[in-house]
Amino acid sequence: MDVDSRINAALNNALHSSKGPACPPGLADAMEYAVFPGGHRIRPRLCFAVAMAHEEPDAAVLDAAVSSIELLHCASLVHDDMPCFDNADMRRGKPAVHVEFGESLALLCGDALIVHAFQVLAGVAPVAPRRVANLLGVVSQGVGAPDGIVAGQAWECETSRNLRDYQRGKTGVLFAAATMAGAAAAGAPHEDWFALGESMGEAYQVADDLLDRFGTAEVIGKPVGRDAQLDRSNAVSEMGVDGASQRLSDIIDEMIETIPDCPGRRGLSDLIRVEATRFTELALRARQAA
Amino acid sequence: MDVDSRINAALNNALHSSKGPACPPGLADAMEYAVFPGGHRIRPRLCFAVAMAHEEPDAAVLDAAVSSIELLHCASLVHDDMPCFDNADMRRGKPAVHVEFGESLALLCGDALIVHAFQVLAGVAPVAPRRVANLLGVVSQGVGAPDGIVAGQAWECETSRNLRDYQRGKTGVLFAAATMAGAAAAGAPHEDWFALGESMGEAYQVADDLLDRFGTAEVIGKPVGRDAQLDRSNAVSEMGVDGASQRLSDIIDEMIETIPDCPGRRGLSDLIRVEATRFTELALRARQAA
Repeated sequence: MDVDSRINAALNNALHSSKGPACPPGLADAMEYAVFPGGHRIRPRLCFAVAMAHEEPDAAVLDAAVSSIELLHCASLVHDDMPCFDNADMRRGKPAVHVEFGESLALLCGDALIVHAFQVLAGVAPVAPRRVANLLGVVSQGVGAPDGIVAGQAWECETSRNLRDYQRGKTGVLFAAATMAGAAAAGAPHEDWFALGESMGEAYQVADDLLDRFGTAEVIGKPVGRDAQLDRSNAVSEMGVDGASQRLSDIIDEMIETIPDCPGRRGLSDLIRVEATRFTELALRARQAA
Repeated sequence: MDVDSRINAALNNALHSSKGPACPPGLADAMEYAVFPGGHRIRPRLCFAVAMAHEEPDAAVLDAAVSSIELLHCASLVHDDMPCFDNADMRRGKPAVHVEFGESLALLCGDALIVHAFQVLAGVAPVAPRRVANLLGVVSQGVGAPDGIVAGQAWECETSRNLRDYQRGKTGVLFAAATMAGAAAAGAPHEDWFALGESMGEAYQVADDLLDRFGTAEVIGKPVGRDAQLDRSNAVSEMGVDGASQRLSDIIDEMIETIPDCPGRRGLSDLIRVEATRFTELALRARQAA
């Protein structure tokens, strides 16, 4: 099974318990709609790649780790798109959850996906309590207060903020949770994997900011120009187009250096470069075409 | 330290990590506002009472358990009160979180409190991985899909529903999580404690429905008559006033019988009767006064 199929199978399995008569059908449909079909699944791919660079990844724990990371990411998209936040109608090329199911169900769907991320970890906790204890810490820190993605979003409600702290919270910390979760699922020390995830998150965010400026809604599947409309600072508004493009190239070179020593370090370096290049090229091409 | 002081100290400690410069100040303030001052803290009191009826409650794990249950309850109140859901302006005698902080921060505050509930469990996982593995399962099932409180709320978005399933999800399952979490924090088998929590939740919900019909906003600290305004079925609309009052008395007698055998069963029975009587008397008095 290739990596994408395995990630989708794990997510499908994770959502299994929300199917059946016990679950309100609207909630079950909204959860499925928010998770499938996915985007690039970049965070779970990263988690998976780090785990496989180690000698003893636990298959069930790894499936739970990649699922929890992606469910939390999907939850954040559902809530971010709501009218009281970004008020974005489209996501992944289709109507946003609140447009398709209404605001009440979108609110509950995001909540249920957050909780589901932890239910999935609970499901493997009895077989590997120590690995799951580490995973629980890594994953919950990546999304909560003081500096996970929820906090990153909350900086948007402040009148003054530091762009780096804001983007680090908004994107970098969940990417860091993904790399650390990969190590934790393999029973390896996870702290050293923070830097790689954080760099990957920064690269992704700068690329996303360039796409917000130069991309089209058809290509990226969501509205563009939102940051300018909402008068929200991003890498392009702070560093200029050239500065942001240069920063993007620099980060990719730097991040390879941060990969900790591990049995599969060489293969992982190649894979990280491919993954990073995939989304950065999209941004740089969009800029050239504009 | 009395039970209420201990619960509030545990909650204060749980919110500690959201204080300090790393956390956006608006988010930190909203989280504090949503948790303090509390209501009756009935769910954490119940969790605490069950744990203390056992021989070996782990103090740190118990503090984490009571905090996680109450943080999840507070999160559900913040999101339920939002305009896209119940649109309730008052909660616990003061403006609801979305009124005080705006909808965006209310949305993020609820999310952050949900995640925080799991961060608190993560904090004690390294010292007691097996107890926390059980806690994680119990707590996450009590709030998520298919039949936790999020699902209970989602039944409100369906055109047809069974009142018992709806109220069980909306209230009963988190009460059941509270009793089971108490047993899990003491390292005891938790499944047998489901029935007590579920009965307690049913009693609380029927009392709440009577208060919604007969109480005043001044006494209960939130708007009354909401179920009728929102054309939402509840125990009073389904069983009538006499039926609901009778059911309330019956449940209290029945629930004492469900308490599993444990070293402190006798003291716990007395305490459960006191707790249950506290909120049911408020409802029955409100009815007599009306």
